[in-house]
Amino acid sequence: MSKQNRTAIEPTRDQNYAEWYQQVIKAADMAENSDVRGCMVIKPWGYAIWENIQRALDIKFRETGHRNAYFPIFIPKSYFEKESEHVEGFAKECAVVTHSRLEDDASGGLKVAGELTEPLIVRPTSETIIGASFARWVNSYRDLPLLINQWANIVRWEMRTRLFLRTSEFLWQEGHTAHESFEEAMEESRKMLDVYADFAKDYLAIPVIKGEKTESERFPGAVNTFCIEAMMQDKKALQSGTSHFLGQNFAKASGIKFQNREGEIEYAWTSSWGVSTRLIGALIMAHSDDNGLVLPPKIAPSHLAVIPIYRNEEEKAHVLDYCKKVTDLFERTEWEGIRIYTEMDERDLTGSERNWYWIKKGIPLRIEIGPRDIASGSVMVARRDKDPREKQSVQLENLKDYCLSTLSEIQDIYYQRALAFREKNTVKIDSKDEFYAFYTAKNKNKPEIHGGFAHSHWCGDPACEEQIKADLKVTIRCIPFDKEIEEGHCIVCGKPSHERVIFAKSY
Amino acid sequence: MSKQNRTAIEPTRDQNYAEWYQQVIKAADMAENSDVRGCMVIKPWGYAIWENIQRALDIKFRETGHRNAYFPIFIPKSYFEKESEHVEGFAKECAVVTHSRLEDDASGGLKVAGELTEPLIVRPTSETIIGASFARWVNSYRDLPLLINQWANIVRWEMRTRLFLRTSEFLWQEGHTAHESFEEAMEESRKMLDVYADFAKDYLAIPVIKGEKTESERFPGAVNTFCIEAMMQDKKALQSGTSHFLGQNFAKASGIKFQNREGEIEYAWTSSWGVSTRLIGALIMAHSDDNGLVLPPKIAPSHLAVIPIYRNEEEKAHVLDYCKKVTDLFERTEWEGIRIYTEMDERDLTGSERNWYWIKKGIPLRIEIGPRDIASGSVMVARRDKDPREKQSVQLENLKDYCLSTLSEIQDIYYQRALAFREKNTVKIDSKDEFYAFYTAKNKNKPEIHGGFAHSHWCGDPACEEQIKADLKVTIRCIPFDKEIEEGHCIVCGKPSHERVIFAKSY
Repeated sequence: MSKQNRTAIEPTRDQNYAEWYQQVIKAADMAENSDVRGCMVIKPWGYAIWENIQRALDIKFRETGHRNAYFPIFIPKSYFEKESEHVEGFAKECAVVTHSRLEDDASGGLKVAGELTEPLIVRPTSETIIGASFARWVNSYRDLPLLINQWANIVRWEMRTRLFLRTSEFLWQEGHTAHESFEEAMEESRKMLDVYADFAKDYLAIPVIKGEKTESERFPGAVNTFCIEAMMQDKKALQSGTSHFLGQNFAKASGIKFQNREGEIEYAWTSSWGVSTRLIGALIMAHSDDNGLVLPPKIAPSHLAVIPIYRNEEEKAHVLDYCKKVTDLFERTEWEGIRIYTEMDERDLTGSERNWYWIKKGIPLRIEIGPRDIASGSVMVARRDKDPREKQSVQLENLKDYCLSTLSEIQDIYYQRALAFREKNTVKIDSKDEFYAFYTAKNKNKPEIHGGFAHSHWCGDPACEEQIKADLKVTIRCIPFDKEIEEGHCIVCGKPSHERVIFAKSY
Repeated sequence: MSKQNRTAIEPTRDQNYAEWYQQVIKAADMAENSDVRGCMVIKPWGYAIWENIQRALDIKFRETGHRNAYFPIFIPKSYFEKESEHVEGFAKECAVVTHSRLEDDASGGLKVAGELTEPLIVRPTSETIIGASFARWVNSYRDLPLLINQWANIVRWEMRTRLFLRTSEFLWQEGHTAHESFEEAMEESRKMLDVYADFAKDYLAIPVIKGEKTESERFPGAVNTFCIEAMMQDKKALQSGTSHFLGQNFAKASGIKFQNREGEIEYAWTSSWGVSTRLIGALIMAHSDDNGLVLPPKIAPSHLAVIPIYRNEEEKAHVLDYCKKVTDLFERTEWEGIRIYTEMDERDLTGSERNWYWIKKGIPLRIEIGPRDIASGSVMVARRDKDPREKQSVQLENLKDYCLSTLSEIQDIYYQRALAFREKNTVKIDSKDEFYAFYTAKNKNKPEIHGGFAHSHWCGDPACEEQIKADLKVTIRCIPFDKEIEEGHCIVCGKPSHERVIFAKSY
């Protein structure tokens, strides 16, 4: 990447958003496609982000009384068949294990052998296999609530895949809980949606809208599916987490029964909820720019890159010595509950090359140190949220405070920027013509970026929802929780409606 | 469990060691079998131990320069075929995915459909799939060493399974590294074995013997396999971790080539190393007793159980208030780098029932608090390493110091006890008759417990090794690193030998 280029990532977001996304991932060295259809390799910089997501959520799950456990990756076909909507939702795209060994074939290769009596499905979600355990664990109301979370890999045989956003194998957590009553299970599914929304805001710096999915977008087998929806920089929506109220459907399918306080046997009420490595896709598309990845400090694998600058061996020893002092400053430092990590970049590359390397990786702060800085007892600090050429001299004695308060500032700036972007691209639309124009308007300078979130009335009829989807590829992202009761007319059929829902194109 | 019973676990270790093991797991609520052949469900108390293992090892892996990443769960059959020894070692027991969907069959059930053009193997280990990435990532000596670790689930279609010790699916970490030279890769594989040995000693309180496997016990495709071996309480050995020096075998199979410092293209030198949920089996069998699980404090999910004792509502409020003060004492407390967790057990059960519950779960310390204790400003503390009835009164102001220093003491006691047990059951044997007698001696009071570790001479001939195995089910656990050069005669054939190796029955 030479300085002459206008941006580090080509194409830019405006030129080709989809390709820009792939190039950001490549430039930041986060992930790559593998030879296995639709399965990605998550490289260290991408995986460290996932570990940070895990760490932050694990604390929240524990605080809300959940415990982690682990269940088998394989689901017997017969389990899968127990809930009819569920199997319909997942049967079309699943990896099926049918054999238990490989044998030499006639041509010197290997052939499959040891056919299983019952095929096994690699879990596309674990309601049925976890339900089988819950049925063993729950006998009385005293065993409830049962609050379990699992971190696991999941396989869904997706036809069109895209790194992080849609892959055949992905990583996720899935919470599974069982309760005594409708109310408790409903409260749990709403509570965990709040946990996700707070996490998205506080850590990922992504504002989200909480709401309920329409029937057509519901999790197969759920009574209600709640979701958080975020706006990406192409103005499309990305569903960033879901929480399902399952009623007694899965309890009946798995036989999760208990003796209630009145001594009667009844089925438990269950919930399930999850977020996945898709969140990393959200993170990239919510914040990154034409110079590469942009990382909110609270989720960044590392916070400061130290870049020593010297011309000869004598200067080198002196400069590295001083750099060591700088990284020592941050040793075992915590900032807002986050452990601060630093990177020392001593590679034999120019200062500009090393700066651009870290810009593309999204590290929040870069610290350049050369002989002149040392002479004045200072360092040059550059921020990822500012112009790449902008640097500020900071005295060594103020450096730690300066960096930590700047991290807080950057975290906030990213959130406010994403929020302003969403607000700017959210409209209320009350006429069908205007609605269609909003989602079909062309902008030749930004061929892939148009539309946004439209708050419009919908009568509740799936046919109207389906027509919008067929005509515009626009869907109801959610019926938001936070709304006013307002009389109006369905954007499609004109029938009366009492509330606006959120329409958008989506991932 | 009533007080009248002699022990909480039946049968005892002496009566039926294998069944005792299962009952300890059940009583501590750590894991259970699932309906899926050989796959276990790891329950919260068991999984929390695994998370502690992960946390401690992750710190060590990071300190030694490794970074975590994630690779596909599926391995194309063609990858698998690249290394001939490797495929032979794993082809006989693997889960093979052959189809990508389920369809309605004529009888209202589901049938497999969407046959894949190439079958996929659920990873039994990831050398080949990670090797494919390494081949893309490595071009020059500047890209080396490449130091990667993965936490993942693994599937090997085991015929006879046992919770934690041998399961069709298990959890593990696998380190994979690539280096410029033989020496560096060898140093790495030895270094990581040291990391495992230190971890086993410092966290699991298990003394291990470091050594090298004989050719017949080597990892399929490795040049050398190094291992740590621990003695269980039935005097059998458990291989607790392995580190493989792979030479250039896998680099050649996967095409991991680089330009060396002389400008020539050569194959990289690789290593791989791993520990698994098997370590939890080792932990159980190294320390637990006839009252249930025994947990070294450094790996325990929780450290103190607080058990309030009261007779009426008035006392209850008073006692719970005081108990809260006790748990508050340990809020955000770290002991030797470990976060201290406490459990407040307010369940409506007798004091004895709650005490036994926590004894069986292996919690290091139990704190009983009743009105009389409060009146004297003290609490009663019981230790898992002592007789269950033994309790000590500790003043509240000394409680925190007392508990933390006692945790250190207990950690050390468990290690010393395991070490003494191993030493007591380790012998040098120089005659074949004595050797056969050692491994066939019957003890009618302890039908399953006999033998131990025998340090004996071996000529190096696989035939002698094989004979011992066929006759006695005894194998060479390792050729220990820590040994003296000593002239002797092979225990089997009498030919000259220069060193003793370690024989034992094993898991």
